[in-house]
Amino acid sequence: MGTVIGVDPGTALLGYGVIEDCEPPRPLAYGVVATQPDRPMAERLLQLYRELDQLFQRYCPAAVAIEQLFFARNVTTALAVGQARGVVLLVSAQRGIPVVEYKPAEVKQAVAGYGRATKAQMQEMVRLLLDLPVVPQPDDAADALAVALCHLQMSRFERRLEERGGGGLR
Amino acid sequence: MGTVIGVDPGTALLGYGVIEDCEPPRPLAYGVVATQPDRPMAERLLQLYRELDQLFQRYCPAAVAIEQLFFARNVTTALAVGQARGVVLLVSAQRGIPVVEYKPAEVKQAVAGYGRATKAQMQEMVRLLLDLPVVPQPDDAADALAVALCHLQMSRFERRLEERGGGGLR
Repeated sequence: MGTVIGVDPGTALLGYGVIEDCEPPRPLAYGVVATQPDRPMAERLLQLYRELDQLFQRYCPAAVAIEQLFFARNVTTALAVGQARGVVLLVSAQRGIPVVEYKPAEVKQAVAGYGRATKAQMQEMVRLLLDLPVVPQPDDAADALAVALCHLQMSRFERRLEERGGGGLR
Repeated sequence: MGTVIGVDPGTALLGYGVIEDCEPPRPLAYGVVATQPDRPMAERLLQLYRELDQLFQRYCPAAVAIEQLFFARNVTTALAVGQARGVVLLVSAQRGIPVVEYKPAEVKQAVAGYGRATKAQMQEMVRLLLDLPVVPQPDDAADALAVALCHLQMSRFERRLEERGGGGLR
């Protein structure tokens, strides 16, 4: 059935979650890549690149799921997130893996059934859907699992539509 | 004496300028990498990556000079610039080339002798300093040459300080 990797990009902490597309969905790996704030940004991005590339190599995801960023606290944050995001998109393109973006409300709707779910509600739903003993930590890893779950649900829905002869949504 | 490459990152147009560190400084290449707005962002970033990597391989720059971005029109712009910037930093780190960032006012001061120089004044100074027949076009290429010139001046100044036994500024 293949795997999907969700990524929550950041330069200090980059969250990832790898889920196998079976019933129920099975978490294969999740966590964060942490970079040292006192190192040059170029070096930190290279670290993200290498660790992501290893994850991609190891789990051969069929898709990379990532949240669309519509706002950020400020321009400095957006610039930093953009840098990490650029690395994620680049590694995906180099390995020929499609990147699918979801709006925050789409992720909440798909995972919690409610587009305005709180962070705590989302984390608990991720725990339940993946049958984890505890809420995944840190937040960045939980967020990455959530967007991966969102992609699984959306792609299953699209497959069902296609099987019935309808067109896909995307 | 080596070369320096200045980069003005953007996802639609990425400006570059390669300058040889001799007296007077000699422009070896400048221009832009243009990506197609209708292509997926991951693919566009991969194009930037490949073309930058070829430039770095061809000109073996001793340093990459880039402007610090303190503000952007909005968060969406900052995110896009961040993605392109992440690719520039990554390619530099992969090739072990140091990246030096300069504030916009530092670039203006170094190139035009005035921290609030206009765009037109800057472009004319770049033309004069590099003995070009016309102002380099498009703006992104001129901006990239300007930050490369800024780096040349700053590093020469530091070398002089070091030769006199003083400490460097950075």
